[in-house]
Amino acid sequence: VALNSRAFRSVGRPRQASAADSRALLLDAAVGLFAEFGIAGTSTAKIAAKGGVTAAMVHYYFADREQLIDAVAAERLQPIVTAVWSPVVDSREIEPMLHGLVQRIVSAAAANPWLPSIWLREVISEGGQLRARLLKKLPLEHVKHLVNTVTAAQRRGELSPELEPRLVYVSVLGLTMLPLASFDAFKQVPILRDIERQDIARHAQALLASAFARRTRQRTGST
Amino acid sequence: VALNSRAFRSVGRPRQASAADSRALLLDAAVGLFAEFGIAGTSTAKIAAKGGVTAAMVHYYFADREQLIDAVAAERLQPIVTAVWSPVVDSREIEPMLHGLVQRIVSAAAANPWLPSIWLREVISEGGQLRARLLKKLPLEHVKHLVNTVTAAQRRGELSPELEPRLVYVSVLGLTMLPLASFDAFKQVPILRDIERQDIARHAQALLASAFARRTRQRTGST
Repeated sequence: VALNSRAFRSVGRPRQASAADSRALLLDAAVGLFAEFGIAGTSTAKIAAKGGVTAAMVHYYFADREQLIDAVAAERLQPIVTAVWSPVVDSREIEPMLHGLVQRIVSAAAANPWLPSIWLREVISEGGQLRARLLKKLPLEHVKHLVNTVTAAQRRGELSPELEPRLVYVSVLGLTMLPLASFDAFKQVPILRDIERQDIARHAQALLASAFARRTRQRTGST
Repeated sequence: VALNSRAFRSVGRPRQASAADSRALLLDAAVGLFAEFGIAGTSTAKIAAKGGVTAAMVHYYFADREQLIDAVAAERLQPIVTAVWSPVVDSREIEPMLHGLVQRIVSAAAANPWLPSIWLREVISEGGQLRARLLKKLPLEHVKHLVNTVTAAQRRGELSPELEPRLVYVSVLGLTMLPLASFDAFKQVPILRDIERQDIARHAQALLASAFARRTRQRTGST
């Protein structure tokens, strides 16, 4: 699954863009502006201007504003959520599961720099306009697999019973998306200025590896 | 330090509020509205209406909108940041330091329900209107104490060298403020519906305690 929708557009194409290209360009313009100014702070005219078309053309592709926002959720955010979460079910062990999850989130943010900001502002924040649209299609079976894996490890005595299995998913997002969304702010704080995305991945992976390491290795007989 | 400004207002007071009361009431109205609609989405007229005064009265207490936002940063957010961070320098060990930090953040959010939303939207998010105001007064000496404590433990071989000391502070915020800000969204997700603030504190404390437990206890001789 392509994490970066831009990969679908070829660079050396003739000037006359196809309808599919124009539509994709408008969605790209929309996510960039939504990340910077929020959905409420972005007019359709601004999206048209950034996409290099008239406002009438925006309405040609997206009958109304709600349809445009639906398309951003379904065609830009949802494929990333699916690509990030689907491989979770391939792991039966917590550590590699969380390690892969962190790497895919950080890679998705590197390929789609608008992602953390939109996620923070429009999914997590109160009144976020993408929250309801994404919650409807949460990859619940993958989240449940993670919850069940943590719960089973707790039952075997390998993990602290104080950990809340249902919050592990939220913890992974907090350890990745929050610093990724703070990237611009980091540049203004002297001690954080040279933090890179890969530092965020490495730190989150190390923290989760220590936090979810088996407490009583003798019980399992290996590793 | 009072984490909840409402504690300053007595309930059975005569109808004629003092000037200090009116000003405090307007700041309370402002933070509530900012948390719900964002600063950009909150007009001065709305704040006046919620505070039960005219827009002219808002201008009497706060000459312009910038002054009102300055006052929210200096009189509502800054005291919380100080109360949450100051005790950090009293700990020389990482685990109690992080345990206390988590508890104070969660308590501050319980006493000031507007806190996580405003922090996420106006401090962390791109274009947040409180970001520059708060960054100027970051409790850097406390953050540095945390960074130095983690670095020293790494040098003694007690912590994974893969952990990034400068990101520990951000990790604590990600493990607390992010789920606290998602509280409303949790209510719409069946498996997260009954998560309480204290579950968030307990989980973050357990996760951090495991992640920052000494790796080689024999080196230190005791715990």
